[in-house]
Amino acid sequence: MAHSAIDVIRAKRDGGRLTPDQIDWVVDAYTRGEVAEEQMSALAMAILLRGMDAAETARWTAAMVASGGTLDLGELSRPTVDKHSTGGVGDKITLPLTPLVAACGAAVPQLSGRGLGHTGGTLDKLESIPGWRAHLSAERIREQLADVGAVVCAATEDLAPADRRLYALRDVTGTVESVPLIASSIMSKKIAEGVRCLVLDVKCGSGAFMKDPAQARELATALVGIGAANGLRTSALITDMSVPLGNAVGNALEVAESVEVLRGGGPADVVELTVALAREMLALVGLSDVDPAEVLSTGGAYETWERMIRAQGGDVDAPLPVAAHREVVPAPESGVLTSLDAYAVGIAAWRLGAGRSRKEDSVQHAAGVLCRAKPGDEVSAGDPLLELHTDTPEAVPAALEALEGAFSVGSREESAPRRLILEAVR
Amino acid sequence: MAHSAIDVIRAKRDGGRLTPDQIDWVVDAYTRGEVAEEQMSALAMAILLRGMDAAETARWTAAMVASGGTLDLGELSRPTVDKHSTGGVGDKITLPLTPLVAACGAAVPQLSGRGLGHTGGTLDKLESIPGWRAHLSAERIREQLADVGAVVCAATEDLAPADRRLYALRDVTGTVESVPLIASSIMSKKIAEGVRCLVLDVKCGSGAFMKDPAQARELATALVGIGAANGLRTSALITDMSVPLGNAVGNALEVAESVEVLRGGGPADVVELTVALAREMLALVGLSDVDPAEVLSTGGAYETWERMIRAQGGDVDAPLPVAAHREVVPAPESGVLTSLDAYAVGIAAWRLGAGRSRKEDSVQHAAGVLCRAKPGDEVSAGDPLLELHTDTPEAVPAALEALEGAFSVGSREESAPRRLILEAVR
Repeated sequence: MAHSAIDVIRAKRDGGRLTPDQIDWVVDAYTRGEVAEEQMSALAMAILLRGMDAAETARWTAAMVASGGTLDLGELSRPTVDKHSTGGVGDKITLPLTPLVAACGAAVPQLSGRGLGHTGGTLDKLESIPGWRAHLSAERIREQLADVGAVVCAATEDLAPADRRLYALRDVTGTVESVPLIASSIMSKKIAEGVRCLVLDVKCGSGAFMKDPAQARELATALVGIGAANGLRTSALITDMSVPLGNAVGNALEVAESVEVLRGGGPADVVELTVALAREMLALVGLSDVDPAEVLSTGGAYETWERMIRAQGGDVDAPLPVAAHREVVPAPESGVLTSLDAYAVGIAAWRLGAGRSRKEDSVQHAAGVLCRAKPGDEVSAGDPLLELHTDTPEAVPAALEALEGAFSVGSREESAPRRLILEAVR
Repeated sequence: MAHSAIDVIRAKRDGGRLTPDQIDWVVDAYTRGEVAEEQMSALAMAILLRGMDAAETARWTAAMVASGGTLDLGELSRPTVDKHSTGGVGDKITLPLTPLVAACGAAVPQLSGRGLGHTGGTLDKLESIPGWRAHLSAERIREQLADVGAVVCAATEDLAPADRRLYALRDVTGTVESVPLIASSIMSKKIAEGVRCLVLDVKCGSGAFMKDPAQARELATALVGIGAANGLRTSALITDMSVPLGNAVGNALEVAESVEVLRGGGPADVVELTVALAREMLALVGLSDVDPAEVLSTGGAYETWERMIRAQGGDVDAPLPVAAHREVVPAPESGVLTSLDAYAVGIAAWRLGAGRSRKEDSVQHAAGVLCRAKPGDEVSAGDPLLELHTDTPEAVPAALEALEGAFSVGSREESAPRRLILEAVR
């Protein structure tokens, strides 16, 4: 049957379901340039306002995957599994998790991106390690997976190219905030990556894209549904992002904290989430009998980390970059730290130079915020609460402005214990 | 206040009202190319699905007017008034109406367009008169208005250019069917034309854009509201377009019928609607004491017609073009013609060559359909019912196909009398 862009747009505009045929056609025609950007943006707005059901969203995702190539992971002896986080403040979990799950016996190809706005990007973090290279060929990815079992690198350009274009279009046309489009964008890249199993860390709270549990659950359910419909074993954890993860926010600062975790130390919340996500991943690939907490504490994960970083040219013995300027924010009074807002800390770190405003910008690897106390900790008036790191001290006033009202000191009774893992969607 | 396209799109997307400032900014930025086509199409879809209230629509229209120049009608001794029809089949009313209202004492600058699809365009009709020129300078328009009182010509390019671009964009992005956008598109061109009074003929029925009275009333109300908010005395008649107007459908055929009306004859429905619209126009300019029916029957309008056509190079004595081929559709049985579908007749005339599919196409001036009977007329089996005129006889089968089921012959009891003028909105 012959299709036209206007017919597809009208069908969705008027509240109808798009047929599999219409979805395949419109995504393919967009990839070929037959459907114009202004037609796709009108369709994206219609989808945002009218929605897509689970079947439409799964098909839309498959069409995005079909717009490009799929990474052929070849004949690996180990089962493949990946993790994707929807993004948060201080979310360095990929760094300890990837070598940990590899050390437990799976192969983990973690194709990642760079940060934009207040949430950091995994590649930006690892690039603070001298010599480390983000870009690998498909061949190198396969070799490193077979050898080390763990790769964190940039997604190759030919994976889901239609999604890349559509994302850039949505970004300038006010059509980002559609759960079906967000979910299909995430999943198309992961499906094209060629893994068989996937665990999603859906962040929820001020520092996350999804601010409340209902939205996060909607997104998690959409993601798991798309995975199932496309032959991936998929599960999701909804986790708290109202407070930064760990103490370190910023590229090199987060690498240092990740190394602490890999050496058996590090902040309790980072350890807890790393182990929980590892358990989810291992369960999906049938390795539930391995205990990731034990592998972490006995140094097996750290050894894999070293091999993984070295395989991509990184010097694990070289010192990490250190910021030229530090500024301490002291506790205003004595008591218990009762809140520390993830979004505010993320914005402060971004303004200090840890993040970028536009894709073309570079990041300061040493910039960021170190949280010297976390909610629940006792602090004394004048004690350092936050440490701002930057190479551009003129950025400090704007960072301090972002932190106004971002934390509070009160009594023990006012300090509610944090639930880190809110829910599992399987 | 600084604006961004995304902020404006989001405001409408999320169901908000656009502020006057936002509307002025987004239309101006679109005109300057700062707001991209893909952003405008997303906004158009959000407007289509979320709506705009009367105040937003009036402001949107004013911003479209401000995107270009305004025709300065100069110092005329007569009051100015125009008529706009939303388009129908056999709708040649502009041809007798313009000279009639001028003959009654007003100045009528009728800036018109060409046809697209099954409804004809006034310029296409007049261009079937040998020598007649559609394009006049602003200076010539003013002179002819002062001299003859009547001008039918093409709109100059600099009137509401943003609307021209937006209309082309809506046409390819499934965002045509929005009453606020349709209404502002019509009114921005008319306001830019510089008249003080405007009567709208909102067509309703199978041959019109608005198929039912509720839609037509919504559009008429929006149009009158925009006019009032922008300082125009505006009223609207909602009129029937389920049956073709008059007997002639097609360019030269409609000119010939219009001349009959101007000479005091012609089909009753064309005369009725011409006089009714003339009364509305004369009432708006304060000339209610003149009786257009009398001016029509005594030949005053015909004299103005001749002067108007001659002023634009037209030869009123030259024969009109005649089609090379005629095909008659006979009445299948004897009885009363109970229906004749306007849309089907419009499509048939279009396929015979009277209309165009794309803006670049030309039209056959002699092509069209002549209705030899109208609903309510008695017919005998074998009598000619419809006459198809074309220079391309190979088009006849497709025209006949369009006419299948388009008319029916029955008993007098099955023939409901037609109400031509359904409602007035003032």
